[in-house]
Amino acid sequence: MLFSAVASHLKLELMGEDLEIDSMNELSLSSSSQLSFATNKKYSSELSSSNAKAFLITNALIEHLPKDSSYIVCEDVSISMAQATKLFSKKPIESGLASAKIGSNSYIDIMAKVEDGAVIGSNVTILAGAYIGTNVHVGDNTVIYPNVTIYRDCSIGKDCTIHSGTVIGADGFGFSHTNTGEHVKIYQNGNVIIEDDVEIGANCAIDKAVFNSTIIRKGTKLDNFIHIAHNCDIGEYCIFVAQTGVGGSTKLGRNCVVSGQSAFSDHISIAPFSTFTARSGVTKSIKESGGVYSGFPLMSHREWKRLQVRIAKLND
Amino acid sequence: MLFSAVASHLKLELMGEDLEIDSMNELSLSSSSQLSFATNKKYSSELSSSNAKAFLITNALIEHLPKDSSYIVCEDVSISMAQATKLFSKKPIESGLASAKIGSNSYIDIMAKVEDGAVIGSNVTILAGAYIGTNVHVGDNTVIYPNVTIYRDCSIGKDCTIHSGTVIGADGFGFSHTNTGEHVKIYQNGNVIIEDDVEIGANCAIDKAVFNSTIIRKGTKLDNFIHIAHNCDIGEYCIFVAQTGVGGSTKLGRNCVVSGQSAFSDHISIAPFSTFTARSGVTKSIKESGGVYSGFPLMSHREWKRLQVRIAKLND
Amino acid sequence: MLFSAVASHLKLELMGEDLEIDSMNELSLSSSSQLSFATNKKYSSELSSSNAKAFLITNALIEHLPKDSSYIVCEDVSISMAQATKLFSKKPIESGLASAKIGSNSYIDIMAKVEDGAVIGSNVTILAGAYIGTNVHVGDNTVIYPNVTIYRDCSIGKDCTIHSGTVIGADGFGFSHTNTGEHVKIYQNGNVIIEDDVEIGANCAIDKAVFNSTIIRKGTKLDNFIHIAHNCDIGEYCIFVAQTGVGGSTKLGRNCVVSGQSAFSDHISIAPFSTFTARSGVTKSIKESGGVYSGFPLMSHREWKRLQVRIAKLND
Repeated sequence: MLFSAVASHLKLELMGEDLEIDSMNELSLSSSSQLSFATNKKYSSELSSSNAKAFLITNALIEHLPKDSSYIVCEDVSISMAQATKLFSKKPIESGLASAKIGSNSYIDIMAKVEDGAVIGSNVTILAGAYIGTNVHVGDNTVIYPNVTIYRDCSIGKDCTIHSGTVIGADGFGFSHTNTGEHVKIYQNGNVIIEDDVEIGANCAIDKAVFNSTIIRKGTKLDNFIHIAHNCDIGEYCIFVAQTGVGGSTKLGRNCVVSGQSAFSDHISIAPFSTFTARSGVTKSIKESGGVYSGFPLMSHREWKRLQVRIAKLND
Repeated sequence: MLFSAVASHLKLELMGEDLEIDSMNELSLSSSSQLSFATNKKYSSELSSSNAKAFLITNALIEHLPKDSSYIVCEDVSISMAQATKLFSKKPIESGLASAKIGSNSYIDIMAKVEDGAVIGSNVTILAGAYIGTNVHVGDNTVIYPNVTIYRDCSIGKDCTIHSGTVIGADGFGFSHTNTGEHVKIYQNGNVIIEDDVEIGANCAIDKAVFNSTIIRKGTKLDNFIHIAHNCDIGEYCIFVAQTGVGGSTKLGRNCVVSGQSAFSDHISIAPFSTFTARSGVTKSIKESGGVYSGFPLMSHREWKRLQVRIAKLND
Repeated sequence: MLFSAVASHLKLELMGEDLEIDSMNELSLSSSSQLSFATNKKYSSELSSSNAKAFLITNALIEHLPKDSSYIVCEDVSISMAQATKLFSKKPIESGLASAKIGSNSYIDIMAKVEDGAVIGSNVTILAGAYIGTNVHVGDNTVIYPNVTIYRDCSIGKDCTIHSGTVIGADGFGFSHTNTGEHVKIYQNGNVIIEDDVEIGANCAIDKAVFNSTIIRKGTKLDNFIHIAHNCDIGEYCIFVAQTGVGGSTKLGRNCVVSGQSAFSDHISIAPFSTFTARSGVTKSIKESGGVYSGFPLMSHREWKRLQVRIAKLND
């Protein structure tokens, strides 16, 4: 799509050369064919060093643009960005693709739906009511139980088990907000990558990324009702106990253990080998690996236990 | 159905004239063709002013009946009411209705199920495994992802997006309890109304009303795993972050923002433009609009932050 | 399967006579044809009195074996046990069984899947998208709503209602952990038994037992989003409000009432007629029946209310 077509959609003026754009991305991850955006001065240095050549920016950020950039000055970059994502959004299913490829010895129930463009490995089991979207890849030996849903473009590794009711690749929860209180959808144009040897329990939801990928790395095991928001990166061999949620873009290192009903804020980063007891509420990044944490607000487990004793004494 | 047939089902005596009854409702919302009920003296004034002409009541409430009422005196109104709801309950699906009507340019996967009596608008997308119940209405441009379930008689607006695994219109959780500890089902005979431009994430559950409607108003956005109980009324342009639950009959004003893992008690009313941080536990109505709240028990966010500092000091 | 075949799979040496083994079980529940295991000295007395004749044990436990036992000495019994469970695991579906038997007056939508070996009672309703696994039993008059999943070998009683999105019989969340941080699946070879007159809300998940059965007893009612882990035993006439979770092997007595967003640790036992207010976090067994509890850590409701007043005063 031409950048001028984006400008026209936004009813705003394109400054600089017209360019062919294939997708959108955040500043630090953009390639030269992607449209990026900067909402405020906090991003001025990321803007200066971005590889993108097309930007949505505020007037105040023009001076920080990389040389020879094309750009659109927006009154509210956040709203314009949301409107632009619609132009790059994909339809829920796609026609005109080749039929799904199915590897040897795979069992796909006739009451499962496999959309065109999907690629299914060998020895895969896909039971009735499961939905495998356009272009989805499923690795060898993976078992997909009934009524699992995998949205288009997602990728599931080898030797995975996905239990019933789990939804992989639904839209991340992203909206820009107008001055009058309406919510403008940021179309979620990324996907989910589940690596090998991952087990996902019943009725989980792992959202697709807004751009790029939400990732669940090798050997990680999720219990039931786990919520993983868009753009999370869950490290290898993690354990998540039931009813836990992880906010958008949060990153956990390998071998973290998270007990039930815990929650992580968005945009934080957790050191590997961290352990969280039940109902931990994690709102800040953790840099040191190997700690054990509890509570909300979060503290070390030892501190939390001592605190509970002190709190109980208030009743004396 | 004749009121005398209800009496016969309950094995109780009808006092007054026999009447044709088409459904049941609570005192303040009943029309003259509905059966209503009053469990105790708390409802005596609502009883006096009710438009209903047929009642299940206790002996102590006879004096508060509107003039010329017909009534059944019950030993346990709550149990008799539950038993009566069964008489008015609808079957999960209905036969003998016209085939579903489908608007122009709509894509309905052959592996989706659309029951008779449904009305689907134009440009609607309904993917494989989705279930559209008897008499359900779906507005123009709405996208219903795989394995969504919409129970009979519910209504979905225009420009909505419903993600996979979400269940709209399952029975509200209502039972009357016998002296010996059994639970008698209160059949849920209402529906769910989702207005225009609503997005509902993966694996949500929005229960149908016991009578009348559970409502999600225009422009509201729900993340994954949101539980909305029967008879809730969620205002326009609200935002609910993942794993939040709302108890029965609770009403939120417009533009409320509710962070993750929060919860609302039943039968409370929340002023518009209220904001709740993560894990808020809201047990009382809020009358003033525009506040920011935290904690369980709930308090102002500012108070909560200060309190956390004080609590942490207990460990010094 | 011969015990020698298990030894060969584990690449370990069989001591004593070879035996035919039909399944695995824990020490106290094993029959003479089952393989059992003891991971450490804590289990020495259970080991001595076990009816099993085949064991996976550590070297230190040999002296506690019942007379004439056959056994395999393992370096890490937990890992070997997990590896052995794979040998006894069943395929997700089974071929070569008789077609499902359907009782009179039952309605099974042609878009529901009923696997071979299932037995469906009379007057049963099974709607589109529901999945009834191999050998599942469904009792008379039960209603199974769209997109419910019932895994193989589970049993549903009479007069039950199972709402959409609910998953019964997914694998319990069980893994043994290697020294290098990988997780070895403990195959879940048990089932779920739902007794008569149980209602289960939308999007619940009740996991199958690792051995034996997870049980939901007669007349119990679950709201939406209830998580019941493997090997739980939920007593008669319990009430669970939405978004509550119960850890593995936990047992609740009859007529417990559990409010929303509560949680129970694994391996605890709760006296009958216990009541838990919203967000209770129950980590210890409760022996006395009839109590009312709140908070996390849990305390009596009265104590909790008083404590909240004291905590609030910290802000004065």
